[in-house]
Amino acid sequence: MGDHLQEKTLNKEKIFEGRIIELSVHDVALPNGKESKREIINHPGAVAVLAVTKENKLVLVNQFRKALEKTIAEIPAGKLEAGEDPKQCAFRELEEETGYAAESMEKIASFYTSPGFADEIVYLYEAKELQSGEVKTDEDEFVEKIEVTLDEALEMIKTEAVHDAKTILAIQHWLLKKQG
Amino acid sequence: MGDHLQEKTLNKEKIFEGRIIELSVHDVALPNGKESKREIINHPGAVAVLAVTKENKLVLVNQFRKALEKTIAEIPAGKLEAGEDPKQCAFRELEEETGYAAESMEKIASFYTSPGFADEIVYLYEAKELQSGEVKTDEDEFVEKIEVTLDEALEMIKTEAVHDAKTILAIQHWLLKKQG
Repeated sequence: MGDHLQEKTLNKEKIFEGRIIELSVHDVALPNGKESKREIINHPGAVAVLAVTKENKLVLVNQFRKALEKTIAEIPAGKLEAGEDPKQCAFRELEEETGYAAESMEKIASFYTSPGFADEIVYLYEAKELQSGEVKTDEDEFVEKIEVTLDEALEMIKTEAVHDAKTILAIQHWLLKKQG
Repeated sequence: MGDHLQEKTLNKEKIFEGRIIELSVHDVALPNGKESKREIINHPGAVAVLAVTKENKLVLVNQFRKALEKTIAEIPAGKLEAGEDPKQCAFRELEEETGYAAESMEKIASFYTSPGFADEIVYLYEAKELQSGEVKTDEDEFVEKIEVTLDEALEMIKTEAVHDAKTILAIQHWLLKKQG
């Protein structure tokens, strides 16, 4: 689809290689032959997990986000490690951040978060048959598990206590499934 | 909520100031007193528009995304200009990219796209009472309008022709509204 819309890289300059993201600036040829620049962030990708308990509550984690300078409630999520299978990463992150072990993980969807400037992709899973256990966050990871009903989750979207795309998307999916 | 999870900036180094994004690295103090680094992208924010025609079709635009090296179909969207009101930006981007003028814009939600590393926020609107007109894309902007039914939109999520968070979130909102 739409190969005639392609922008070809004429030159690429790597500006920054960090622990998580890389930044490059591409000089590109536009479809009309003119040149422009594209500022591109490369990211390893991430998983996120819709986890609903036997009591029909959604598992969220409160987490301080430096980019936003505030704490928001998100579904459990985390970056892919090098070569890691997304489904295994989903099991790992859910257990680390919430203590829940899932019997299985069912893929809901994948999506790019910011296609205008970043290649970050999120693989969204639904955790099945949760068994509670011990939270195993990394020593330098600070998250707080909370559990909320569907009505509470919808209210948190309104009050912006939930305020990120993947979490809203997951809550909509849960609502659609309940209605279906 | 959760101020005890806060990470305080001890030092901030600006690495890059581009046309669209800025990159800084913060040295932060974690809640346990240890230090870490946070790689942060600052972005001006954006709007996105759920626009459904009188014929009950969703308006999408095919757009090449350099970060992904591919063309995907997204709801009309664009970056906020300096000082621009998000609602006005929604009217402007819809008209520029699709030719549709809306009688009004109703806010659906706002959301951060990548809270782990970026402050980009998207304000999502629903366009009301579309009137078709002339597409007015910038000279160097290449997008192709398409219009699809709800079933086609859901199929495009499955085939990943639609593959970004804001568009999936908007389609789910449309589906929930139809079911409600």
